[in-house]
Amino acid sequence: MPKISTKGASMPPSPIRKLVPFAEQAKKAGRTVYHLNIGQPDIETPDSMLDAIHHFAPKVVEYSHSAGIESYRKKLTTYYKRYQIELDYTDILITTGGSEAIEIAMMSCLDEGDEIIIPEPFYANYNGFSTQAHVKVVPIRSTIESGFALPPVAEFEKLISPKTRAIMICNPNNPTGYLYSKEELESLRDIVQKHDLWLFSDEVYREFCYDGKQYTSVMHLKGIEQNVVMLDSISKRYSACGARIGALITRNKDLQATALRFAQARLSPPTFGQVAAEAAIDTPDEYFTKVKKEYVARRDFVVSALNQMDGVYCPKPSGAFYCIARLPIDNADKFCQWLLESFSWQNQTVMLAPATGFYSRPDLGTDEVRIAYVLNLDSLKNAMKCLEEALRVYPGRVEKKMAAGNLA
Amino acid sequence: MPKISTKGASMPPSPIRKLVPFAEQAKKAGRTVYHLNIGQPDIETPDSMLDAIHHFAPKVVEYSHSAGIESYRKKLTTYYKRYQIELDYTDILITTGGSEAIEIAMMSCLDEGDEIIIPEPFYANYNGFSTQAHVKVVPIRSTIESGFALPPVAEFEKLISPKTRAIMICNPNNPTGYLYSKEELESLRDIVQKHDLWLFSDEVYREFCYDGKQYTSVMHLKGIEQNVVMLDSISKRYSACGARIGALITRNKDLQATALRFAQARLSPPTFGQVAAEAAIDTPDEYFTKVKKEYVARRDFVVSALNQMDGVYCPKPSGAFYCIARLPIDNADKFCQWLLESFSWQNQTVMLAPATGFYSRPDLGTDEVRIAYVLNLDSLKNAMKCLEEALRVYPGRVEKKMAAGNLA
Repeated sequence: MPKISTKGASMPPSPIRKLVPFAEQAKKAGRTVYHLNIGQPDIETPDSMLDAIHHFAPKVVEYSHSAGIESYRKKLTTYYKRYQIELDYTDILITTGGSEAIEIAMMSCLDEGDEIIIPEPFYANYNGFSTQAHVKVVPIRSTIESGFALPPVAEFEKLISPKTRAIMICNPNNPTGYLYSKEELESLRDIVQKHDLWLFSDEVYREFCYDGKQYTSVMHLKGIEQNVVMLDSISKRYSACGARIGALITRNKDLQATALRFAQARLSPPTFGQVAAEAAIDTPDEYFTKVKKEYVARRDFVVSALNQMDGVYCPKPSGAFYCIARLPIDNADKFCQWLLESFSWQNQTVMLAPATGFYSRPDLGTDEVRIAYVLNLDSLKNAMKCLEEALRVYPGRVEKKMAAGNLA
Repeated sequence: MPKISTKGASMPPSPIRKLVPFAEQAKKAGRTVYHLNIGQPDIETPDSMLDAIHHFAPKVVEYSHSAGIESYRKKLTTYYKRYQIELDYTDILITTGGSEAIEIAMMSCLDEGDEIIIPEPFYANYNGFSTQAHVKVVPIRSTIESGFALPPVAEFEKLISPKTRAIMICNPNNPTGYLYSKEELESLRDIVQKHDLWLFSDEVYREFCYDGKQYTSVMHLKGIEQNVVMLDSISKRYSACGARIGALITRNKDLQATALRFAQARLSPPTFGQVAAEAAIDTPDEYFTKVKKEYVARRDFVVSALNQMDGVYCPKPSGAFYCIARLPIDNADKFCQWLLESFSWQNQTVMLAPATGFYSRPDLGTDEVRIAYVLNLDSLKNAMKCLEEALRVYPGRVEKKMAAGNLA
């Protein structure tokens, strides 16, 4: 029997999805499972998108241009203009989800063994994409104590080597919910400029900034226009994860030309999704106002419920729809599996993402979980009740003085 | 300004799409361009698929399972059963087009520097996927004189090295239209078994086998069940290229588990496309009977028209909807660009794919083009008329005794 590749063997399983078989078991056993493990919102997709699909007119479902449908790319420039991001449509390459935008950016900018600095905890699949591209992730740690703020510039400087080619951030952040300030982004700009690095920024959660805080894009930064690559997706913006439409955005023409060659190899992004995405640009502001209000209510409830649990600490995030909580447990992977395999409260349980998968060192995040507040308030109430009960009876509970101390 | 990667710089441009800017210019200048350069059929997508999209019921466009929607995977087993291919649904991983199936198969089975033997000319994007995966393509030449039959086993044996991990074929073949016989596949089976290699087979054109010839799948081969990977797509089958739905099919559980990790990193294949693809399985046989009849008429016309042109030779293919023709020209890339830039017959011209991109050595295919007979007969008649006229006036015309000799 032929062997699978070393690369294949080293691909990390998704920490967000690896517990799926246990969840399926729990459901087959008749239990309700609240999915807070994955950023799959229950928010309805805008009618504009579904209408466009219901009225899809062509008789042949054709390939689009490899860079995406031209009218869609042109219309997207009007969407970005609302955020004071001025683009020509040729600065935009449409991709199959944000995932493909990241894959193409990595392959276009980094070679085998090149290093990319990423504040951790980070979106787990960055590990997968780096493994695919044979790129080395150099993590720089942000801590729960600081609410996961950007580490100081001096810490970045320590990590820069001749192999460093890029810095990558996610803003607003998945998994922490942290929203980088203008000042933090300007400090990043300075490092990027000094060392002439690529700056990748995953900004798929820009619609979800709370408490009146300002979203600053890497596209706003002056002086590093040729270094900046924004990675985007409509998945969260319009609650349309399954459409698989993203974008790689850069004003660097060499990079656009290179990215297009990768895009040509895979022919084109999905046509149905693009048609829906183009229609989505007309989504009225009220849609977002309503959705944002809903997420704020969910966040406020979840973060407050968590911090009221004995031994639990959760900083309050300002963006996205995730938070990271520290729990009084021995091991997050064990705990999350146990929730699905062995725990039940009123025939319900909750599925969480162990934070270990969001760190690159195996000893980090072992008492943290990522919670996606993507379900309605009633479900979240039940889910938090489950978690509270579970922490009470979990055999691996560990009392930590630190955890309570962090509340101060 | 930061540099793009060496990998990015070495990505080959698509020979099928690299002339697109010249085609756009020609169209802007008011000329009709017949697109025989790309396998984008004008055949209508089955109503079943479009109906499914028009009635898409969910209110939230969710991610699917990373391996694809379970009901779709289950129903697909009934489709393959019609071809005497017995599968469990867990043997099927749904991908974003056949392209992604190839990418994932390569990354899962081959490491950097590993070798994959592919009969050339081959589908040009295999070069791109190999570059992405840092895999070395070892071409084995099939010739226009033999109608692009599989090279003899002895030729394969000569190329097998300690680095050889896989053989890849496309059957029915793109770009040649050649349909491998059962005997040819059995000879491949013997090599694969002897050296314990992976056997990748791109079988996206199985619906298009002509003249009563038998399609044999690698999935039919006995004794190498654990070595075989079938790469599939609905793009051509249902004229639904833009749906971006393919599949990686293997009974090797280690490979399925590895492929799933790559699939999890990119989250899920497109939801709309999967819903349409599931409905497509109910497409009545009459659809295919009609489509096949149409392609046979197109092939017969094109191949005959080509062979009637002075100095042109084109073997008659038994499958897919491509043929490769040898033309009396100095350079296929120059000629194809000239067709778009400088030639016009009754304000029309034709876009062809230079065959150079389907070979790995730059000196091969320089007097060959790939023609996709994907347009209706009227368009094909005009396109062939354009080509005939173009060959008459092309400044780089080269008289070759060989070409005519091959007609015998």
